[in-house]
Amino acid sequence: MPADHASRRRALRGLLAARELDALLVTDLLNIRYLTGFTGSNAALLVAADGDERTLICTDGRYVTQVGEQVPDLRAVIARASAAHLVGEFGTAGARWGFESHVVTVDERARWDSLAASVHFTPAPGLVEQLRAVKDEYEIGLLRAACGAADRALADLIAAGGLRPGRTEKEVARDLEWRMFEHGADGISFETIVATGANSAIPHHRPTGAVLADGDFVKLDFGAQICGYHSDMTRTYVLGRAADWQRELYELVLRAQQAGREALAPGVECAAVDAAARSVIAEAGHGELFLHGLGHGVGLEIHEAPGIGAAATGTLVAGAAVTVEPGVYFSGRGGVRIEDTLVVREQSPELLTLTDKTLTVV
Amino acid sequence: MPADHASRRRALRGLLAARELDALLVTDLLNIRYLTGFTGSNAALLVAADGDERTLICTDGRYVTQVGEQVPDLRAVIARASAAHLVGEFGTAGARWGFESHVVTVDERARWDSLAASVHFTPAPGLVEQLRAVKDEYEIGLLRAACGAADRALADLIAAGGLRPGRTEKEVARDLEWRMFEHGADGISFETIVATGANSAIPHHRPTGAVLADGDFVKLDFGAQICGYHSDMTRTYVLGRAADWQRELYELVLRAQQAGREALAPGVECAAVDAAARSVIAEAGHGELFLHGLGHGVGLEIHEAPGIGAAATGTLVAGAAVTVEPGVYFSGRGGVRIEDTLVVREQSPELLTLTDKTLTVV
Repeated sequence: MPADHASRRRALRGLLAARELDALLVTDLLNIRYLTGFTGSNAALLVAADGDERTLICTDGRYVTQVGEQVPDLRAVIARASAAHLVGEFGTAGARWGFESHVVTVDERARWDSLAASVHFTPAPGLVEQLRAVKDEYEIGLLRAACGAADRALADLIAAGGLRPGRTEKEVARDLEWRMFEHGADGISFETIVATGANSAIPHHRPTGAVLADGDFVKLDFGAQICGYHSDMTRTYVLGRAADWQRELYELVLRAQQAGREALAPGVECAAVDAAARSVIAEAGHGELFLHGLGHGVGLEIHEAPGIGAAATGTLVAGAAVTVEPGVYFSGRGGVRIEDTLVVREQSPELLTLTDKTLTVV
Repeated sequence: MPADHASRRRALRGLLAARELDALLVTDLLNIRYLTGFTGSNAALLVAADGDERTLICTDGRYVTQVGEQVPDLRAVIARASAAHLVGEFGTAGARWGFESHVVTVDERARWDSLAASVHFTPAPGLVEQLRAVKDEYEIGLLRAACGAADRALADLIAAGGLRPGRTEKEVARDLEWRMFEHGADGISFETIVATGANSAIPHHRPTGAVLADGDFVKLDFGAQICGYHSDMTRTYVLGRAADWQRELYELVLRAQQAGREALAPGVECAAVDAAARSVIAEAGHGELFLHGLGHGVGLEIHEAPGIGAAATGTLVAGAAVTVEPGVYFSGRGGVRIEDTLVVREQSPELLTLTDKTLTVV
């Protein structure tokens, strides 16, 4: 199934009509990719409210061939200063154009007035992001592929004895990344976290030369990127032999993670999902050691809508792709985080990261 | 020699005084890193014109410890919406604050008015970037280290037979990146380019499953990142045996590159450096196949000021770190680019990428 960019643009037009806009000038490159498939590093897109016939994509001379191949269904215009060019050439007097005021800089906005003072520019932040928060099946297929590459890379790493005393965090990180590329990743989702021993208590630890040792928790938080879509998964292992406190801590976080996963359903408030997991940890007396939100949306960005935290205001819808990642961190001693990427479905949520979560001693 | 952030802030104050500003609200994270050493992912910095006593850095709760360690010489304030917090809490009536209008979004700027309507916000784009275009010796030391890691990784790759028929572009890219990490890189500078055969004629080719074959040009464009500073180098090799057209093309690009390097000196117009290299290629009848500018500044960003192209307007100064990278591309057949990173010095420029540039058949 190919990506249906035309239907995404149709959905956007519904939002434009409700705001009485003649067009939306899209300048965020990921939003342009979402609406057209174009992946170049410079572009602007003018989505006309009345249809694709008057919708324009502008990019520069480096991408003449590429824009023709990737966006055969829209008229392409070639100019280096893409947004300014669309404003200057196509900004008719009295037109009401929405623009991405959460992305456009003050200087860029001022420039438009000097090019087409008679266009009514209206801030319209976050419209495309609102659409992107609900994934279509094409996108879910790519998320599944990205999660699969991460699953297989981790399985290979473990099978090859890649998690063993004596290796450094950095070595393990590079090894895991390499294996994701071998399994088809176009890139990594974010800087891979490998945190051993006391470092596992630092939520977002950057890999160092610290050496893995027997008895350590080793926390791996990593992801693969395929066709722009990101996977996100955390697993925590124990090296050699698990102490009682490690087993207890692990089981607690696993129960919290399960509670969070089970709370995922259309119509549920995001804050309630966070609470479902957080209450498990709080009841065990460690509420203050769960230092961050439960999860976040994932797609063309590694962090996108919806946010799932105690102060979140949104409600889940079917098709949202989110992480569930509680963690408990004993500073100076060690911590556990367990994270999956899932899709909210009408029935039970679809798990995309399939790596086993029972406590594994390697 | 440690980084002297205080003297960078003093230099910035010279620019503020010339503009009669009471302070500059810095929101670009790389500019904040340059001025303070802070590397967190959320911050705002208010550089007071009258000195460090009233200069403030704001970041959120995740970075309380880090900001104290990295920025011991400034007062730190903790708030999630850092720039808005500084505006709301410290924006005294009538104060003249410059802001980075090339970075700040329309929505963020509008928010400030609702928090401190009586502050005079004045667009002051590019002030810190202007300082960053001239590197101090601390920065040059880090650029030297980054270029050294790339040099050594490439030497290892060649010595290990890593450039051989049968490997794919992707495999070579991953291999080279891995070796940069082994030589101390914190990250890669940009997506590594490995382009074999006809792909070498694509200036910015993304590595594919294409297999290296005897007689191919193989173009490698890559860099290492150390402490935030980027290296950038391109070398083009021939596999097996070089044909006459390949030798001629290579020697032409090498002569152009040498001419460009020799033109680097304080006071020389950037456009003249481009012309020095471009004229060599034009005289050989291939001017239209040199598809891009000659080079660019490099530092905390892989592309920064000064630009070195035919339409560039600036003039070189001592301490500028720039690339010199002419290329000639025979579409469908193959291309050559040769690129070094250098520092403009009063005497001759300092070459940072030391890998040999004589035609190498591997």
